[in-house]
Parts: sequence; structure tokens; C-alpha cells
Amino acid sequence: MTASKYFFRTEATSVAATSVVSSLLTVETSGAGFTDLTTEVAKFVAEAHAREGAVTLFVRHTSASLTIQENADPTVLVDLTTALDRLAPENAGWRHDTEGPDDMPAHIKTMLTGNSLTLPVADGKIMLGTWQGLFIAEHRKAPHKRTIVAHLAGN
Amino acid sequence: MTASKYFFRTEATSVAATSVVSSLLTVETSGAGFTDLTTEVAKFVAEAHAREGAVTLFVRHTSASLTIQENADPTVLVDLTTALDRLAPENAGWRHDTEGPDDMPAHIKTMLTGNSLTLPVADGKIMLGTWQGLFIAEHRKAPHKRTIVAHLAGN
Amino acid sequence: MTASKYFFRTEATSVAATSVVSSLLTVETSGAGFTDLTTEVAKFVAEAHAREGAVTLFVRHTSASLTIQENADPTVLVDLTTALDRLAPENAGWRHDTEGPDDMPAHIKTMLTGNSLTLPVADGKIMLGTWQGLFIAEHRKAPHKRTIVAHLAGN
Repeated sequence: MTASKYFFRTEATSVAATSVVSSLLTVETSGAGFTDLTTEVAKFVAEAHAREGAVTLFVRHTSASLTIQENADPTVLVDLTTALDRLAPENAGWRHDTEGPDDMPAHIKTMLTGNSLTLPVADGKIMLGTWQGLFIAEHRKAPHKRTIVAHLAGN
Repeated sequence: MTASKYFFRTEATSVAATSVVSSLLTVETSGAGFTDLTTEVAKFVAEAHAREGAVTLFVRHTSASLTIQENADPTVLVDLTTALDRLAPENAGWRHDTEGPDDMPAHIKTMLTGNSLTLPVADGKIMLGTWQGLFIAEHRKAPHKRTIVAHLAGN
Repeated sequence: MTASKYFFRTEATSVAATSVVSSLLTVETSGAGFTDLTTEVAKFVAEAHAREGAVTLFVRHTSASLTIQENADPTVLVDLTTALDRLAPENAGWRHDTEGPDDMPAHIKTMLTGNSLTLPVADGKIMLGTWQGLFIAEHRKAPHKRTIVAHLAGN
């Protein structure tokens, strides 16, 4: 245990790392917005019989991304969609519009929010905070089938 | 060792992966801005007796995030705060304002900068570049106590 | 195998985790824009003789970053550069300009896109989607030599 004026850290605990477990998760989104994956990823961790380790999630698309956000007030997710629309608006002179005006903004939103997340697991539980949920963000207007790789290293 | 016109890569080195070490780091932020965690995380790696591996850091909040930034000129951190304020301004018609005008901007800033980081460790040292520091970014105006999971897989 | 209305997940597969392999990749960028690292990182995974695991990439700079993006239409990369220029413009009153007007915008762009990525590996292949490429984004105008740590945990 260490403590200083601004920092406090628990003593490090150690276990042997023994396995890599992986699974593909397919999600049917309903168009632009956020879908909560928390329960589904917790099931994966339980099925993997993992106690200590880290789960990495990776979305295999360039117009959908992963984010950790508040799971309590659903208006947060509405505002996040609004914020992304303002940061990457349609009809802003993008050269790439092969699949329509929401195509290039979706790529930009994906770049800003990211494709991979790594979450520590302790005592069989993903170490999310009380108000944290794990979401896939769909950035296209139309519903899409999205594939996520779930990967757990630990034991 | 491989080399081509634009790429150069050192020969891969390999060691046995044997353990997962984890610790909780609590940080008292002093309100909106950046706090340098580099030394504290280096202590964790030293305490874990890790030589080769990767350390994952995960902040368990939805209004604080992690970033790698320049550790030399402190005005960089001032400008980063300004930039985030411009990208996610207060009083911009957000629906979620339960905890005040800095609430929703804090969620947006967290989404844009991210909750998790994975940093390789070699020869007992985090492989940060010369000018890189590891920071927690507090996005609320008031000071907060923030918890970060530090997780090391390696040996 | 689990399935519900919106989710489908394959049965988890497990292998023993046995090694950590790492390598330094140096890239010569040609100024602001994106350089495709996919092939080079695939070579690293092959050289590491990894079948199952995860590769973490970490760029050791504060004005270059890593992103997953579309590998098909090159105008996507042009538009991404435009988008970043709009989100972090030059001559916007930044205090930090030690190395010129593109200095502080480069730090902001790095913060928004990120320094580390973790990609699952299965059956010896990085689990990228069909249209995904792995890119380093150079945010300075001038060409730079950039170093990336490639780190693989698996077997």
C-alpha cells in the first residue's frame, strides 16, 4: 500500500496467467445510436470461467465504435449522438460519399471514439465503475449487423 | 530484423507470460485539468516485479479519462483543456444537465479521449517516449476522487 | 453459443497463454496524413509465431497516433485529415507554439485519436474486418521518423 498527498494505491495482487479465451459477438443495431453490451460481455467473462485478467473488445467495422458511458440517464446517449453529429456533420464537403451523406461522418465518429477497449477483470467481474456501461455506437443511419471480437487473457 | 523503404522493425523477442498483477489507484483531482500519473504507474510496475509485459489502465468514471501527452511544456495541458472546452461546450442545448452545465460536456470529453490505455513494458520500464507522460484528465469543474485500475500481464 | 433478439455470440474457445513477444517498428512518415501499417504488423505476428492472442501497438510520440480506418477508398483518408484540421485548427489562439503553428493542433489530434490499440489475433491472423486497415496518423506537416512498440501476448 502506498499513499501520498494526491495518490493512494492498493498493494498489487498477482495470479498466474494461463489462458486466452475468445468469442465473436454479433449485434444488430437499430441505426445511429448506442446499444448496451455490458450484460453480454459479462456473460462472456462468466462463460470463460475467468477470475483475474483483462477483456479486450474490438469492433470489426469502420463506421461503428466502442465506448464506456453512463448507464443511468438515457438522455446522455441522446446528447452524445448530438455531439458527434456536430463534430462530424453531414454535407460538410466530404469527398468520400460512396454510401450516402452519413458515410464519411460515420468514419470520422469511429476515429474519434475508437475500435478497441481493454477492461480489467477481477474476481470474475469486469471492473466497470457504478455508472459505467459498455456500448457499441452505431454511426450509420440504417440498422446494421456488427461483429465484435471479445478476447480474454487471464485465468 | 526487417527493413524496407519506409519501415524498420527490430527482431521480435519473446519471454514466457506468467502472471497478472493488479492494483487500484485513487487520485484526487483538483478540478478540470490534467494530473500526471506516470511516476505512480511506474511504481506499480516496479512493485509488480514485471520485466516484460503490458500495463492496462482503466478509469472507472464517465467524466474523467486517460491520455498520453507531452510532459515538458505545461501550456500544452492548458491548450488541451481549451480544445476540449471548444469541442464540448457548456450551454449548447444538452438535454442531460442533472449535475450542472459541466456535466454533459464532461461525458463528451470522456468519450473523445477514452477510458482505457495499454502500454507495453520492457526491461521493467513502461515504453513511453521521451516526451510522453500519462495523465488522467478531470472533466468536471470540482475536485473529485477518481479510481483507476492498473493491470499488468507479463512476467 | 448464445442468442437473443439482438445478440449472437459464438462459444468461447480457450488456449494456454505462454509468451510475450515484442518488437520496435520505425516508420518514416511523409508529413501530415496516414500510413498503412497493416502488412508490417501482420509480419510481426507471423514472425512471433503467434496463433491466438492479442497484439498491442503503442506509438511513442505526442504528435502522431494510431487508428483503424477504411482501407479501400483513399479519399476517406483525405477527409479524415480535413476533419482533424477542422477539429484542431491552426492559429486558434493556442499558447503552446514552440515548434510552429502545427505543433499544438498535432497534440490535440493525438489526444482525440489515441496512442494505443489492442487487436485480437486468432489462428495467426489479426482479427481486422474486411474493410479495416491499421494506420499511423502523422499530425505534423514535416516528415518524421516515428517509433511504435508492437507487443503480442498469446501463444
